[in-house]
Amino acid sequence: MNGEIMAAEIREQPEVLARIVREGRARIAAVGEAVGGREPRFVLFVARGTSDHAALYAKYLIETRLPLPAGLASPSTMTVYDARPDFRDVLVIAVSQSGASPDIVEPVTRARAGGAITVAVTNSPGSPLAEAAEFHLDVLAGAERAVAATKTYTAELLTLFLFVEALAGRDGQEASALEDRARTLLDGEAAVARIAVRYRFAEQLVVTARGYNYPTAREAALKLMETSYLVAHAFSGADLLHGPTAMIDRGFPVIAIAPPGPGSAALRPVLDRLRELEADTLVIGDPELARLGTVGLPLDDVGPEVVSPILAILPVQLLAWHLARERGVDPDQPRGLRKVTSTW
Amino acid sequence: MNGEIMAAEIREQPEVLARIVREGRARIAAVGEAVGGREPRFVLFVARGTSDHAALYAKYLIETRLPLPAGLASPSTMTVYDARPDFRDVLVIAVSQSGASPDIVEPVTRARAGGAITVAVTNSPGSPLAEAAEFHLDVLAGAERAVAATKTYTAELLTLFLFVEALAGRDGQEASALEDRARTLLDGEAAVARIAVRYRFAEQLVVTARGYNYPTAREAALKLMETSYLVAHAFSGADLLHGPTAMIDRGFPVIAIAPPGPGSAALRPVLDRLRELEADTLVIGDPELARLGTVGLPLDDVGPEVVSPILAILPVQLLAWHLARERGVDPDQPRGLRKVTSTW
Repeated sequence: MNGEIMAAEIREQPEVLARIVREGRARIAAVGEAVGGREPRFVLFVARGTSDHAALYAKYLIETRLPLPAGLASPSTMTVYDARPDFRDVLVIAVSQSGASPDIVEPVTRARAGGAITVAVTNSPGSPLAEAAEFHLDVLAGAERAVAATKTYTAELLTLFLFVEALAGRDGQEASALEDRARTLLDGEAAVARIAVRYRFAEQLVVTARGYNYPTAREAALKLMETSYLVAHAFSGADLLHGPTAMIDRGFPVIAIAPPGPGSAALRPVLDRLRELEADTLVIGDPELARLGTVGLPLDDVGPEVVSPILAILPVQLLAWHLARERGVDPDQPRGLRKVTSTW
Repeated sequence: MNGEIMAAEIREQPEVLARIVREGRARIAAVGEAVGGREPRFVLFVARGTSDHAALYAKYLIETRLPLPAGLASPSTMTVYDARPDFRDVLVIAVSQSGASPDIVEPVTRARAGGAITVAVTNSPGSPLAEAAEFHLDVLAGAERAVAATKTYTAELLTLFLFVEALAGRDGQEASALEDRARTLLDGEAAVARIAVRYRFAEQLVVTARGYNYPTAREAALKLMETSYLVAHAFSGADLLHGPTAMIDRGFPVIAIAPPGPGSAALRPVLDRLRELEADTLVIGDPELARLGTVGLPLDDVGPEVVSPILAILPVQLLAWHLARERGVDPDQPRGLRKVTSTW
């Protein structure tokens, strides 16, 4: 069957999340304690593609839960322009499924040489990135064969959540019910499949969210581009009102990711504006907001907002998979893509 | 005439750039010296929309020319989640044309209270943002009336360039010939107008670049969305190969921004890949690379790459303007937009 590899990997996620809590937690706590003892004052993330969205989630966590200032590095300043910033007191966290992209490994090597505390978060313990960093966290997702990353993404999110909580001296108990909640969401596949049909002939769409789930919107757009070849554009709700609304007219498809919490509350004025513009909206999240969409996919029990990105992406992965099949595309073989990119 | 306000503001840019060098430089140097004396160790930018692209350019400058680690703040962590990170030794630079958006002012107020050195870069000396920050740099662009920002963008870029150079103890002489070069580029309008015709019926396109001009690609995409309502998506050349290439097929329109330098050299493998995919490419920049595009717009004399973003956006502004008119849209009145957004 077309897409069976990606489908199987989507379905593995509850078990992967359980495995991280069960087998990964002690190691994460130990690295968190060691890194915390070095008292970093600023955090920089190095990542690309799907892992960049995991890094963005972790950046929000660092800013809200430690709290320390944090940023996403621009790898090209080091790989293209040979920059050598002063990295003392900086915690550099590199996130990469394969741990093999040279444009992720090189900045970590430089950061470590420049005095940074370096942590690699990968699904590949023996990878060049795991070797380059002082500390390594294995996300324990098992081999991922589909080109479109799914289980490594949620595994990166949970690993990063637990790591930030360890850094902050907390136990990350918000993550406790993830496995069951993930199963429930995946069991809702039939409703997602029905919604996917609507987008059979869509050529472009916008995904929006605010707060912790802005990375979910970014990842959702990427998944839809990778598997269904439609042009999907993610905007934070705030940025969407700053210019791109000009392209949104009657019937323009917008997907809003809005699990309950302050992020979805802040998205509400954006939804109101989209309604004025008569956009076609799919609201995934808070049941009350889901009712405001042209179509709604209520998520009843996704737990605390801070871990909701680990869950809210699941229906979107299913949506991307079903939409690809609806459009006659094999989700396991997106055209033009390789699993490991080697841009320098 | 439709679009005359935006057209006039595009044409004012050589004079604005000259004014900044002539009248703004002493103030920029003084603030640079005062801030440098406080020895910041990390730099965070706060901005949204067009100004976010100016901030991204400045982030590259901070990383390559000081060099210090730098990041872009996520304003919502402070406005939505009430985060209060430890800002000691952090230089926070807020960039906003109007200086009025509460989601920019609030993070600066918090950062200052939390120990940051704060600098506001605005076109509005009396604005709440200028008041909230310890230091203020006026970009001296004069009142901007068009909704699509043009002259305030290039004024922000040049002000930020001179500020980073001042911080680094240099005189920013790379900026010396900008006025003349800007005039020459604007004089090439007829060629841009001919190219704009090609995109009359385009519904979507991708803009790509690497290095210092990645912000130019982002701003180009936003300008095209704001004025011509097409769905324009910016990717760094490296990210483009990480997934989004799946949506690019034969004839898909891609604009590459590639002024001569290491950034355009790093973009060359991306152009090769786009050629394999038979994408329709417009290459704006290095005359040698411009020959590789389906269509080329060679930029003969844009000076040192580090200041080329101040110039390379000019033909794109003209392209956005001509394309809007070609599509029957008034560039001065993009639908659905307000000059100052007040998302919280």
